[in-house]
Amino acid sequence: MTPTPWKLAKRAEKMNPSVIREILKVTERPGIISLAGGLPSAKTFPIGAFADACAEVLKHNGEAALQYAASEGYAPLREAVAAMLPWDVDPAQVLITTGSQQGLDLIAKILIDEDSKVLVETPTYLGALQAFTPMEPKVVSVASDDEGVIVDDLIAQAKDARFVYLLPNFQNPTGRTMSEARRAAVSEAAAKAGVPIVEDNPYGDLWFDEAPPLPLTARNPEGCIYLGSFSKVLAPGLRLGFLVAPKAIYPKLLQAKQAADLHSPGFNQRMVSEVMKDGFLDRHVPTIRALYKRQRDAMLAALTREMKGLDVQFNTPVGGMFLWVRLPEGLSAVELLPQAVERGVAFVPGAPFYAGASDPRTMRLSFVTASVSEIDTAIAALAATVREALAQRDAAGIKPLVTELESR
Amino acid sequence: MTPTPWKLAKRAEKMNPSVIREILKVTERPGIISLAGGLPSAKTFPIGAFADACAEVLKHNGEAALQYAASEGYAPLREAVAAMLPWDVDPAQVLITTGSQQGLDLIAKILIDEDSKVLVETPTYLGALQAFTPMEPKVVSVASDDEGVIVDDLIAQAKDARFVYLLPNFQNPTGRTMSEARRAAVSEAAAKAGVPIVEDNPYGDLWFDEAPPLPLTARNPEGCIYLGSFSKVLAPGLRLGFLVAPKAIYPKLLQAKQAADLHSPGFNQRMVSEVMKDGFLDRHVPTIRALYKRQRDAMLAALTREMKGLDVQFNTPVGGMFLWVRLPEGLSAVELLPQAVERGVAFVPGAPFYAGASDPRTMRLSFVTASVSEIDTAIAALAATVREALAQRDAAGIKPLVTELESR
Repeated sequence: MTPTPWKLAKRAEKMNPSVIREILKVTERPGIISLAGGLPSAKTFPIGAFADACAEVLKHNGEAALQYAASEGYAPLREAVAAMLPWDVDPAQVLITTGSQQGLDLIAKILIDEDSKVLVETPTYLGALQAFTPMEPKVVSVASDDEGVIVDDLIAQAKDARFVYLLPNFQNPTGRTMSEARRAAVSEAAAKAGVPIVEDNPYGDLWFDEAPPLPLTARNPEGCIYLGSFSKVLAPGLRLGFLVAPKAIYPKLLQAKQAADLHSPGFNQRMVSEVMKDGFLDRHVPTIRALYKRQRDAMLAALTREMKGLDVQFNTPVGGMFLWVRLPEGLSAVELLPQAVERGVAFVPGAPFYAGASDPRTMRLSFVTASVSEIDTAIAALAATVREALAQRDAAGIKPLVTELESR
Repeated sequence: MTPTPWKLAKRAEKMNPSVIREILKVTERPGIISLAGGLPSAKTFPIGAFADACAEVLKHNGEAALQYAASEGYAPLREAVAAMLPWDVDPAQVLITTGSQQGLDLIAKILIDEDSKVLVETPTYLGALQAFTPMEPKVVSVASDDEGVIVDDLIAQAKDARFVYLLPNFQNPTGRTMSEARRAAVSEAAAKAGVPIVEDNPYGDLWFDEAPPLPLTARNPEGCIYLGSFSKVLAPGLRLGFLVAPKAIYPKLLQAKQAADLHSPGFNQRMVSEVMKDGFLDRHVPTIRALYKRQRDAMLAALTREMKGLDVQFNTPVGGMFLWVRLPEGLSAVELLPQAVERGVAFVPGAPFYAGASDPRTMRLSFVTASVSEIDTAIAALAATVREALAQRDAAGIKPLVTELESR
């Protein structure tokens, strides 16, 4: 037979393989300590509780758990989600999704037309950019500092924006958190400008010393869609997340959900619902917080020790999984990566997380998957890599690269 | 705060609640025997095998099963899928999806632009129409008979079509099957006309007396995407399906998959892979075939007995879950439904399954979820409903409605 011509949709041309995914492939070589992944620590997965829940669900509700089910999600799980959120949520507003990534896909489908303006943080979660891209938005990066979007620039960019996408808690990639004052100002400014907020909160429960301020959605529920996930407090391999939407737009999200995969796995929903009974998360999540805090402290200590005198900047995240590093002037994280891999350590350069102009000096480090001794080894190797790159820079006598971002 | 304005994407306006879903809600009243659902029989779910597999997976590979995983799917499951298909498939061409419904969503995203022509059977699977709709195609219904699309009309409509969507085995909704001769002709015509085929085969393993002819994809793998599912041979509540795509377009489908939900639940994939070990499906699927055949026979016997003299036509599906009924002239299945529900039986009218002009006399009956005695009761009640409607029709002296389809 003659080869059949496949004509791709226009949007397919805009879709590209994940840069990070390609990076991760390189770093899967044995002997590499990876600080690159976005994975939670597998040590935190409550395997025993899942095993008990599976057995229980299959014993007592096997047929129902394995049958087709409602697109909205399993009612007791929707009720549990509504009950655990810190504002008044009707379970009828909760849609269970196949990971919170699917929530982003559904939102893109119902809110983005070709060339619709969508506002994001600088930098922002790469997976969100990937979820929005097939609907062909014009993504605009709102100027941001170490608390997230700067209100004045949000207002300046607000006109005709379909929504602003925000990650207020321990943001991916930077680990930064929006203060109470910033939240109040952003919430007010968005409402005033008529810009809906899409609030993504996968990490909010992973705080170290104190819970973060109230979500943006709690401040103006009719103007926000809220995304949550069980991936970081239970396990990502079940692919369960949820969104909470105003009743005015919930039906369209539900239709998009039904068309996308009919419903999220009912078996998984019942398992999670079973595991969560009797306040399991109240006992389990503090153990994750304690582990991740120890890991963050180890990385901060290693960075402080190893990067001394190298003009490397890094922040102190108060929760989550990631820490944000900025290299000295003239260094590029993308260029540094192969050299770091040579020395046995991998990270993710910051560049792919920028919707607009990127800061080539930035990188994301995960502190949750490597062990404390691996972190020590990895940060020492990273420091040696930086030192070598600085020596090369100075030997070449090249004027330090001034990035667009720096010159702002 | 002032209410925030949500501006919906243009495509969202085209998305509508599933008509069938609305119908199913009505029929959930206690005491109603439903022949309306598209559910497999829960009696066929291998609950014990799943319980063993869960325990095994969590005991030996708990951390990996619960962690983030590859977007392509779990390698041993992809290999098992490739091995069970009746043509030469490279596991690298297999993409595990969150139910085969997601396969339709991904295909729509990468192949459909606004107003792209997409060809479907008359009638066709409603869920496919729902999956395609958000990408705003112009769906064209190819004239069909009791073997599926008519080749001459396929050729006539082929120009610029992005693909033709076909369900050759025990189609939903009609239960019809494409003969060997029709497959050969359709495959050749599509290749000649340069129209890719999207072949959906959720029911192909559920044959009663002999296996259906080779899939269309086996005849021209480079010109087809093939969709399969574990929902009917194992259980739908795990939400696992797969697609097989030519290597030329696989990367775009993978990118769409990654953006949609990162990956399908790894835990579920490992469970299914574990269950399928040692030829489980070879022992299990014949028990489903035997059950469904008995159920079909019971429905055929009841229809033959109860509809005698009523001018009601019905087909004899050789596999699957559905049977297609055509009411006497002048009757409408949509109008009949509330009267049938009054008598304690529910069905799905055929109308929603037509992309173009519908045949209002048609309805879909599932023979797999009601018991044999319920089938007897339900078909007797349906016959009584038809008898009453005929009496009303004749009393009113209304000229039988001639539908567009009838007048072809």
